[in-house]
Amino acid sequence: MEINRKMKRAVKVGPLTIGGGFPIVVQSMAAVKTSKVDDVLRQIKEAIPYGLELMRVSVLDMEDAEALRELTAQSPVPIVADIHFDYRLALLAADSGVAAIRINPGNIGSEDRVKAVVEACQTRRIPIRIGINGGSLFKDHEATPEEMVAAAKEHVAILERNSFYDIVISLKSSSPLTTIEANRLADQVFPYPLHLGATEAGPKDVSLIRSAAVLSPLLLDGIGDTIRLSMSEPPLEEVKAGHRLLRDLGLEERWPFFVSCPTCGRTMVDLMPLARKVQAYLEERRLNIKVAVMGCIVNGPGEARDADIGLAGGHGVYALFKKGKIIKTVNEKDAYDVLIAEIEKDL
Amino acid sequence: MEINRKMKRAVKVGPLTIGGGFPIVVQSMAAVKTSKVDDVLRQIKEAIPYGLELMRVSVLDMEDAEALRELTAQSPVPIVADIHFDYRLALLAADSGVAAIRINPGNIGSEDRVKAVVEACQTRRIPIRIGINGGSLFKDHEATPEEMVAAAKEHVAILERNSFYDIVISLKSSSPLTTIEANRLADQVFPYPLHLGATEAGPKDVSLIRSAAVLSPLLLDGIGDTIRLSMSEPPLEEVKAGHRLLRDLGLEERWPFFVSCPTCGRTMVDLMPLARKVQAYLEERRLNIKVAVMGCIVNGPGEARDADIGLAGGHGVYALFKKGKIIKTVNEKDAYDVLIAEIEKDL
Repeated sequence: MEINRKMKRAVKVGPLTIGGGFPIVVQSMAAVKTSKVDDVLRQIKEAIPYGLELMRVSVLDMEDAEALRELTAQSPVPIVADIHFDYRLALLAADSGVAAIRINPGNIGSEDRVKAVVEACQTRRIPIRIGINGGSLFKDHEATPEEMVAAAKEHVAILERNSFYDIVISLKSSSPLTTIEANRLADQVFPYPLHLGATEAGPKDVSLIRSAAVLSPLLLDGIGDTIRLSMSEPPLEEVKAGHRLLRDLGLEERWPFFVSCPTCGRTMVDLMPLARKVQAYLEERRLNIKVAVMGCIVNGPGEARDADIGLAGGHGVYALFKKGKIIKTVNEKDAYDVLIAEIEKDL
Repeated sequence: MEINRKMKRAVKVGPLTIGGGFPIVVQSMAAVKTSKVDDVLRQIKEAIPYGLELMRVSVLDMEDAEALRELTAQSPVPIVADIHFDYRLALLAADSGVAAIRINPGNIGSEDRVKAVVEACQTRRIPIRIGINGGSLFKDHEATPEEMVAAAKEHVAILERNSFYDIVISLKSSSPLTTIEANRLADQVFPYPLHLGATEAGPKDVSLIRSAAVLSPLLLDGIGDTIRLSMSEPPLEEVKAGHRLLRDLGLEERWPFFVSCPTCGRTMVDLMPLARKVQAYLEERRLNIKVAVMGCIVNGPGEARDADIGLAGGHGVYALFKKGKIIKTVNEKDAYDVLIAEIEKDL
């Protein structure tokens, strides 16, 4: 099975391209106030080794807006400014080196204000992301997929009337099914790339399931040009999760595919600490290899023969195997080092 | 959007029914050797409050098979015996009170042996799960979806020739896309219920994403009558993850829907410890309510108006809200107790 990605308008976001068949961009959002530039930069730098490509920050007030110039000057990745309502913050952001702005033009106010923001973005080739949140649309009910798409249409129409087409759209509801359906509808309606995510998914254990449950069916349909797996964790965790999901679906090349058995009555070694250590090594380096850490020396190498390299545990020993064939047997305490040495030999 | 579940043969597994439109059964597998009956029972008892409905145990040898009688006598949930090749273990298991057996009849050997196992199961009304593992099928390559379904067909045909129809089928590959496609094919071909899972998904952070990525598109298509979210964690974690996924897709009633914002520059309270505590409370009791723990007193109650009840944090205080309306404001340190008291009032 191969995924046929939908072809949407190619939108430039700083050095990146979202849409147009380009690789899906993994983004995150800073979990600290933007005016604390050093904290934001620290979160960015922590996440970059794991493939952070684009960072969104919320611009709540003038203090945040004024911090953008320093932030964009120092950040190794492009910055998206997230702005609600206040068009002056948008103007200041556009003038401070951000690569994109998230704002809903229907919420800015008068046509003059819209024109001012559009012009500021147009001059600097800054795209606008329209973000529809199903929970915020109406005072009396959670929006339906149709209502969410209708709301997006209104915002899009305002931009198009101003000859502005560098648009990315997101539609999120706290309901996974509503989010899936809204994005399927939006894919039918809009020629613009879609940003996918589950909203308010909360703690990591909840978010990983809910985000994958929402994004996987859409990505399988070829929908989605940028993703954020939002959770109550630092950005680097969001970024890892995003690449893992894309890799699982064959949509990501710079990431390991890691296989490990859930351990059962057969397991004679302390598998998990080793598995976690190997996984951390592979992900920190974003190595595009398939690695297996299996509990069972009898079945492991065979079951994981699709892996480029792996370890399978017996009584206090591990077999090192490549493409299903055992190369050598090593003591449990040496297993990690031997595996890594063998991986690095082939890099 | 509503999910229309495929109607498959209703297969009795002890007191449970898998298929026939019955609720999707959440199962797990013991991570200890079956002969250590006390350890298995402890894992079962830990997971039962979280909705463990069916426990699989591996039967590797006579010692394990002989432990089944005591295990099935003492286990509050039905037991599935997982057997490879050895038909004598299957016969002993069938005679020891297990509710189902996982064995691939094509691997047992002679027609006589198959007949003996089928008869033992038929007499006691014990269904058989056929489990196809894409990694074990061939010596030289990882099986394709078509090859996996063809292998399942052969095993099914052996049972059907012996007039045995109480069959559940699983098809797993370490490749998520292959697993999805194999199950979509199997759904077209077989009238029997399907057991869904991702195999060798390993550490929790990997497994949660990969399992949801595989299961969500299938469940959305109405495919799947029982699930296991396998991971290198005790069964209770597998069970929680399984119910969370089903609840996210509207397929589970006895589970909370928990909403929490990822926290951002706006958040003025220490949200996460509170969010985790509330989530643990709700899941331990399997309360079917929608609860929100939000960082933002201004937007939180509105964005989470779909929640039955929730908390939204401001400067050292929380607003308690119901269906979007703020009921009262409480100190940060009292927030948990006040929320729980309000929830329990309405039970």
